Amino acid sequence: MNKETLIEVHNRIKPFIHKTPVLSSSLINEMVGADIVFKCENFQKMGAFKMRGATNAILSLSEEERQRGVVTHSSGNFAQAVSLAAQKLDVRAYIVMPENAPQVKKNGVKTYDGEIIECESTPQAREATANKIKEEKGASFLHPSNQDEVIYGNSTATMELLGDYPNLDVILTPVGGGGLIAGTALAAHYFSDNCKVIGGEPMEADDAYRSLISGKIETNDSFHTVADGLRTHLGDRNFPIIQKYVDKIIRVEEDEIINAMQLIWERMKIIIEPSCAVPFAAVLKNKEEFKNKNVGIILSGGNVDVTNLPFG
Amino acid sequence: MNKETLIEVHNRIKPFIHKTPVLSSSLINEMVGADIVFKCENFQKMGAFKMRGATNAILSLSEEERQRGVVTHSSGNFAQAVSLAAQKLDVRAYIVMPENAPQVKKNGVKTYDGEIIECESTPQAREATANKIKEEKGASFLHPSNQDEVIYGNSTATMELLGDYPNLDVILTPVGGGGLIAGTALAAHYFSDNCKVIGGEPMEADDAYRSLISGKIETNDSFHTVADGLRTHLGDRNFPIIQKYVDKIIRVEEDEIINAMQLIWERMKIIIEPSCAVPFAAVLKNKEEFKNKNVGIILSGGNVDVTNLPFG
Repeated sequence: MNKETLIEVHNRIKPFIHKTPVLSSSLINEMVGADIVFKCENFQKMGAFKMRGATNAILSLSEEERQRGVVTHSSGNFAQAVSLAAQKLDVRAYIVMPENAPQVKKNGVKTYDGEIIECESTPQAREATANKIKEEKGASFLHPSNQDEVIYGNSTATMELLGDYPNLDVILTPVGGGGLIAGTALAAHYFSDNCKVIGGEPMEADDAYRSLISGKIETNDSFHTVADGLRTHLGDRNFPIIQKYVDKIIRVEEDEIINAMQLIWERMKIIIEPSCAVPFAAVLKNKEEFKNKNVGIILSGGNVDVTNLPFG
Repeated sequence: MNKETLIEVHNRIKPFIHKTPVLSSSLINEMVGADIVFKCENFQKMGAFKMRGATNAILSLSEEERQRGVVTHSSGNFAQAVSLAAQKLDVRAYIVMPENAPQVKKNGVKTYDGEIIECESTPQAREATANKIKEEKGASFLHPSNQDEVIYGNSTATMELLGDYPNLDVILTPVGGGGLIAGTALAAHYFSDNCKVIGGEPMEADDAYRSLISGKIETNDSFHTVADGLRTHLGDRNFPIIQKYVDKIIRVEEDEIINAMQLIWERMKIIIEPSCAVPFAAVLKNKEEFKNKNVGIILSGGNVDVTNLPFG
């Protein structure tokens, strides 16, 4: 792949996504001593950047493949993204979900006409069920983070941000499965002069931080983080990109995530989900490092149950 | 006053306010069957449209008056607006507040260097204390809603909205003290061909609705509404404007306000306060009336205690 690949991807998905707004807050800038711009993917269709990768993955399929449908086993934002992108492109979307998944997530998928296939709540059952659908229906499997087309689709958020703010010194994203930060790093590499990319990761699920140290993909034994979108680990497609182009990963504590989230809610009047607050928490924790810098933060998503918040 | 007055006001306050963004949601449009644009004054400096009127009121004072400071006895958004506008213009702001006002409101004023003067929690005590400061300090009294300069400042939100969306059939605002809807109605009168202005008001504080029927300023006996910014009544400066230029007022129930608020939070990912949800609740309640119309809604503010929400 090269720069032109990403430009093609962006042109291909543009009709199906929002060019999301970029916001800033003078109070937050004063607080940090930096010039921070927030790329609001929480305002993206279905409420998260995942719409970009899902759309590109489906548009990359042949006409024949599209007729057979797509399948994924995410239970989070990617399930909604695949459902909505498939709906817009007139493709069937099979979403494998554990039978005990929260009703609010099932409803999200149903809103966009995704077809839910329930399975037992184990990784093995989810994979087996997805494989069965692949075989029975001939559906194409879409991975939430470890697939080139998804990663390239994710790059487009940063391409838009750098188009509007070419002087950024650094861009931060959350790190979960690695698809967003890999896409961001590719975009920064091809569309900026020297813009660094830094990840924010919960201390309680710091697999990516450890992976960069050990040189191999590490996993998490437990997942005690409010950032429910960041409990997954890296994959073989995105890890090499992250190793090559990501500057570093900053880890943050749970209370730092919740404080950062509340600060963005209160000061910017926008709704972000806990995972989305992690890179801003990293900036607040390391203010000295970002002082007087032009900082971009990808606000990854805003899908949160507003009747059940971590503030208090 | 005339059209030129409002243009002058807008030019005067522009350096001190945000031109706030206008957002829309395809899901909400589908739900209503109309084309709705939301003017996001929740993103205004200090989080509400009140910044416009407060700024204009202070800028309208003579140099000598400014040196003696300003005083108000709002305990809500106007207190913060006066504090911030005064801070920016290097003017002292005296804010009379009941001693039992919530700490979060006191903190809001302190953030912007407003000087809090506590008094007993009665309208009489508030007025007496404000009068005392007027006399002792020579400070100019600013009224949150019933003062021409404040009303004209409020008009600028609609001037910006109509500048971007000249084809609106109707604009809706909440109705509290009447300053916003009066300013909106003046702007619609001078800057649109035939755009109607409709108010949304809680059934539990429907003084303006009753005032338009009786032809005199009515008050509320009780204030059992979640829309805490709309408990006040109209005044002699804004009521004639409202009588002349406002099409009508639609009343909504408490659960309709809360539902409308939650819908905007969840679908648009933006934070609005309960008072701000009232006009959208009015549209949801009367869908037929707005079908296929180009509708503008002024989202008045986003200052809400996120640790204490009415959802759930």
